Formats: sequence, C-alpha cells, structure tokens
Amino acid sequence: MNQRHTVSVWVENLPGVLIRVVGHISARGFNIESICAAPTLDPQLTRITLVTEGDEQIWAQILKQIRKQINVVRVTDLTEVSRVEREMALVQVKAPERYRPEVLRIADIFRCRVVDVSLDTYTLEITGDHEKIEAVLDLLNAHGVLEVARTGTLAIQRGKKARGKGEGRN
Amino acid sequence: MNQRHTVSVWVENLPGVLIRVVGHISARGFNIESICAAPTLDPQLTRITLVTEGDEQIWAQILKQIRKQINVVRVTDLTEVSRVEREMALVQVKAPERYRPEVLRIADIFRCRVVDVSLDTYTLEITGDHEKIEAVLDLLNAHGVLEVARTGTLAIQRGKKARGKGEGRN
Repeated sequence: MNQRHTVSVWVENLPGVLIRVVGHISARGFNIESICAAPTLDPQLTRITLVTEGDEQIWAQILKQIRKQINVVRVTDLTEVSRVEREMALVQVKAPERYRPEVLRIADIFRCRVVDVSLDTYTLEITGDHEKIEAVLDLLNAHGVLEVARTGTLAIQRGKKARGKGEGRN
Repeated sequence: MNQRHTVSVWVENLPGVLIRVVGHISARGFNIESICAAPTLDPQLTRITLVTEGDEQIWAQILKQIRKQINVVRVTDLTEVSRVEREMALVQVKAPERYRPEVLRIADIFRCRVVDVSLDTYTLEITGDHEKIEAVLDLLNAHGVLEVARTGTLAIQRGKKARGKGEGRN
C-alpha cells in the first residue's frame, strides 16, 4: 500500500554522501516529493529531511539499507510520530499599483513577509504547513505568480506534553 | 579559485532526475552545502535550489552538463545576480519554566514563531538569511538546543527596481 513517508537522516557532511542516500530511494522507484538538506549545529553533520511516497514494505527495506550506510549517523522515520511539519516558499507575485493593497491584504492575513519590492512585483516569504502554502499560492496566483521557490517539508518531532509518559513524546 | 555558487534547476518531477543533477556535482568532488527541492506551481516540475562551493571553471562545466540533461527544463545560476536568499530552521530549545521568558524574548526579537510547546521545550520557526539563522542558533544554544532542522538556502531573483533598465533586474 502506498503511503507518504517523512524521514530525517543525519549524515557526515562529505561529498557523495547525500547522493548515496538519495540513490537508495530512487533505485527502488520511489519519487522524492521534496528534500531539504543543510548542516546542523555541528558543521560536520548534515540533516536531510525527505518526503517520498511508496509501498510500506519496500520503504522499510530502504530505511534498513540507508541505516547500514557508512557516513550515515542516524535515521529517524517521522512518519508515525507526532511532529511539526513546516515549509517555506518565496513567491514573486505581480503587484501593479492598483493591486498592491489587495496583495498586501492577502500577505497580511496569511502572515507572509514582504522580502522584496519592485516596480510591479512583490516577493513574499510564506511559512506554514503544506496545505497552507498551497492555499496561499492559489490565492496569489489569481494575481499572477511569476516565480516560486519552495523548500519542501521540514519536520521535527514534538516535545513531551505530559510528565511520566516515558517514550511517548506526544 | 573556490567560490560559493547558488543555482536553481527546474526538472521534471520524475524518479531519478534529482539524483542525476546531484550526481553531476558530486562527481566533480563538489560538496553540496545545502539543497532544497519541491514541486512548483506546475506539479510536473520540481525546482531545486542548490548551494555548493568549488572552482569557478569546473562549476561552469558542471552547469553545462546539467543543462544538457534530459528532464532538465531550466537552469539559472543565481550566483552573480541580485537575489533574495532566505532559509528556515526549526529549533527545539530547552525551556524549563524559569528560562521561558528569556527564550521567548529572543524569539520575539528575532521574529521567530513558536510552533510547539512542551513541558520543558519550545520549538521555534526562524526565517532569515544564513547569517541571521546562525546568530539566533548561537544565542539559543546558550540555553541548550536539543534538535535543529534547516532547509538550507532558498533563493529567488529580485524584481526590477527602475524603469528602462532592460535586463538589469537589480
């Protein structure tokens, strides 16, 4: 059964390591919906956040293979745990003078930040979950979106909400 | 001479395409400092934003190779153009009761959003350029950062600032 999977992989920050992780996933025919990778607090380590979709059993095999890789330090499958998922998009939207107030109203309602202004465009920074980003893009697209860059999903496990629940980080 | 390169690559959203793009870069020994890839408004297309460092001449060759790839629709080297660069981080920071006000003050000053609260942690969403993220992480780390996930750099070309400047999107 096909399922959406979100996973964090910590790898050593060396040439060729990222590609080997991605390779294990691609080799099984899984498409990578989104990927973010950047150094952690320890600059020797890179944290990769990946979203992909495919058969659950094959996914378990892929994770096993990734875990066995040299240069892979830690793998956390976030699919089943309680997590915060956020994404960022930069959107350049048409904003000729007469439509500027309306574009700014949308930006305001969805707590976007204006990060660039030109003669006839605004560039907005939007953060939120996948659905929110999609909704804002749809709205802005009515005005004409010239360019979009999205980070893809970033995810982090939620903290413990109650004492004495042991492993249950819920 | 080694230089930092920021590039956007639009590819068809198919299994194996991302890995081929990354492969061209890794094969020349360039380390990928950060990568974001996610679908665009057209779900058939994925936009990859990549930051890497290495020799300028080899970089030009790599770009040429990527441009020649099937399934690569467009390549824009943002290194030399005026651009907005932003990054997002999710940071789980220790926040026992007595330190909560101070952590919140830092969050407030740097316009972070609190996206999760637990018994003794806050999870903050931070956006900004690379340097700002580094600065906030340093500050928060004084309280104890438990986990960080970063998107890596997302970049978009700036809009035209004056009329009649032709190509000069500055």
